[in-house]
Amino acid sequence: MANPVNPPRGMRDFLPADKARREHALGVIRSSYAAQGFDEIETPVLEDASRLHSGLGGDNEKLAFGVLRRGLTAEAVGEYAAAGDLEGLTDLGLRFDLTVPLARFYATHRGALPGVFKSIQIAPVWRAERPQKGRYRQFVQCDIDIIGESGVVAEIELIAATLATLDALGLTGCSIRINHRAILRGLIASWGVPEANYERAMITIDKEDKIGVDGVVAELIELGLIDDAVAAQAAESLTGLPDDGWGLLEAADAGSVPWLDVEAYRQLHEIRDAVTAVVPDAALVFSHNLVRGMGYYTGAIFEIQHPEFGYSLGGGGRYDGMIGRFLGSDVPAVGFSLGFERIVDLVDLSEGHASDSVVLVYDRDVDPAVLFGLKSQLVLSGARVRVEKRVKNLKALLERLTDAGYRRFAPVTADTRTVGDLQVKPLV
Amino acid sequence: MANPVNPPRGMRDFLPADKARREHALGVIRSSYAAQGFDEIETPVLEDASRLHSGLGGDNEKLAFGVLRRGLTAEAVGEYAAAGDLEGLTDLGLRFDLTVPLARFYATHRGALPGVFKSIQIAPVWRAERPQKGRYRQFVQCDIDIIGESGVVAEIELIAATLATLDALGLTGCSIRINHRAILRGLIASWGVPEANYERAMITIDKEDKIGVDGVVAELIELGLIDDAVAAQAAESLTGLPDDGWGLLEAADAGSVPWLDVEAYRQLHEIRDAVTAVVPDAALVFSHNLVRGMGYYTGAIFEIQHPEFGYSLGGGGRYDGMIGRFLGSDVPAVGFSLGFERIVDLVDLSEGHASDSVVLVYDRDVDPAVLFGLKSQLVLSGARVRVEKRVKNLKALLERLTDAGYRRFAPVTADTRTVGDLQVKPLV
Repeated sequence: MANPVNPPRGMRDFLPADKARREHALGVIRSSYAAQGFDEIETPVLEDASRLHSGLGGDNEKLAFGVLRRGLTAEAVGEYAAAGDLEGLTDLGLRFDLTVPLARFYATHRGALPGVFKSIQIAPVWRAERPQKGRYRQFVQCDIDIIGESGVVAEIELIAATLATLDALGLTGCSIRINHRAILRGLIASWGVPEANYERAMITIDKEDKIGVDGVVAELIELGLIDDAVAAQAAESLTGLPDDGWGLLEAADAGSVPWLDVEAYRQLHEIRDAVTAVVPDAALVFSHNLVRGMGYYTGAIFEIQHPEFGYSLGGGGRYDGMIGRFLGSDVPAVGFSLGFERIVDLVDLSEGHASDSVVLVYDRDVDPAVLFGLKSQLVLSGARVRVEKRVKNLKALLERLTDAGYRRFAPVTADTRTVGDLQVKPLV
Repeated sequence: MANPVNPPRGMRDFLPADKARREHALGVIRSSYAAQGFDEIETPVLEDASRLHSGLGGDNEKLAFGVLRRGLTAEAVGEYAAAGDLEGLTDLGLRFDLTVPLARFYATHRGALPGVFKSIQIAPVWRAERPQKGRYRQFVQCDIDIIGESGVVAEIELIAATLATLDALGLTGCSIRINHRAILRGLIASWGVPEANYERAMITIDKEDKIGVDGVVAELIELGLIDDAVAAQAAESLTGLPDDGWGLLEAADAGSVPWLDVEAYRQLHEIRDAVTAVVPDAALVFSHNLVRGMGYYTGAIFEIQHPEFGYSLGGGGRYDGMIGRFLGSDVPAVGFSLGFERIVDLVDLSEGHASDSVVLVYDRDVDPAVLFGLKSQLVLSGARVRVEKRVKNLKALLERLTDAGYRRFAPVTADTRTVGDLQVKPLV
């Protein structure tokens, strides 16, 4: 090769087989959520740099790709450098999630939107992360959000719609871990952590998947957030609860689970009861140590667990304070985001264009008018049709077409005139 | 509003109705081209800045949004400024078309692709143009390309597939203007323009839509490309040909149309004959003054004309030299690009979820388990279902839902238990 050529670091090309799989999965997600009464919207991939860096994006803000201002002179750049104002070099950036753009969108168009707005966004986001296995610098997120509804009816609808969508994707056996920020705060408070440090403690608890309960407790001590005296208590309360976590209600009412915010716990029960009534095989597990990373969550939080994988396939929660930040007023909101890049690897793409596809293998001396006339007729009859020039190694060509999902082929010679002349043969 | 919020200049949000129209049109284009045997691929929206500025993108290169390098210090920025090396500030950029990424993709993956590769790309591109009516800084292109086929069979397949796709979109009555770069070069040569100035002359001829034939001739004289003596001849030869331009073959064979490259003209006839045999109502018009802007075209060029509009809905041509630029070897290629943003405004979205959609209007005291159980059953039966809380101004709510495409609604009260209890009424 004259010139090494690759996509930019951490970003991917999709060849036909991968692209077909992705579009198939996106189509299933799109139509499932649409059937559930959600409305799809789209925002530009670029947002004003000031909005991307307004503090709503947490650590992701640091990972935003910035777009250089147009028309800068060397002199102007020198002035920015001298002033130490590197942010001044960029006026736009690539979005790092779909939530900040949704908040901006809602503020822009609130007057044109219904009182309770149920949105779908299916779109790529960009993060300048260190590339590693399964982490990309461009990846697709699928978000549904309900804005304007403060009751648990929103959580119920989001979770039921997401379970229906996972089902439509053929991803059975998923469970939902659920918690409530108020419960998490109560738990942390029970260790004697002052309120100013709740968020910091949650960041540590959120690492449990990686460092284990002992690692979390050690880090909480190291950070000075808890005393050695409560280490054992903290470790015990971070360990899983019996009976999927739902059996504490009677004891809580009796006051014997002092760390448990009973009102929040009742809300979660209400969500669990309704979802399992709607989706009988739904498995909802109360996980009092589930955090979800983002600082903006205010109420119920949830995460999808797949039986075969240690990682989550998506998650979300209530974030009542955030949408209003661009509006100057509080607006209740709940969101659920599917981790598309993980999901697409699990989807079985057995459908496709297998049965109704055909390859026309034509000789060099075939009249193009005849060849494409045949193709056009077959397409109109509902088939996916590929034309391929006959090559010396016909066997290799036919094998490649089999791999590409075609199942039948028909030679076209100078004598072929009509579809009736075609001798269609199986490819395999 | 506490804070004015808009999408970045020249970029658009899409609200549900617009987004639905766009996804509908994209779905039609995607499935039509797939049925025609093209394979969809995807590349990252960012490419290395050096590839975007390698000279293949023409004037569009100047319009690329550049991405600031990550981790720059003020000192490093100052050094770039002092050296006048503003390009050094960016390492990536947003693609301004789908052709440069396709050339890079083909070079990266050639070994995994078939000998003749037929691709679809449906994706946004970005240009930092001065925003104006109908011109956006982010817009979608739909490109099909055939790489590796040097015969006119490629042009025939591309044009026939595109006409089938326009038909699937309900855009009838479109005609295809067609020309050949060799013919255009012969025409310019006949005015005595030296070969080094052919490209410059084409740039002027390309402005005919805006400045007319007289304006073109005046500019050619002003640029010193032609003499006053040939002005009348140039004006005459730029004016439309009789008989859709196809009637010159006999005269050309007799040598009485000296500017006409007869071999290229015969190729165009071959394309015309095959396409009209396949698509009987196809209207192909030979336009010897059609240029298409890009410098990389080498053979046949074509453009879609809609009967009601002065502008083109898409176009393309043969560009044999370009794909090989990243490979170091010549690879024949032909492409056709649909102007999606113009097309989507013309598409009639009469399909949709009209008949099988229903809104469940629920009272506040309804059990969510019942409500979402009803919703789930209706979704499983194939309906698109929206739940809405009953509000005081029910009439306004129902009107909004009618506008959103729903056609039926059913109240859900505390007494409702099963789908059989629902009293479904028309919304209109």
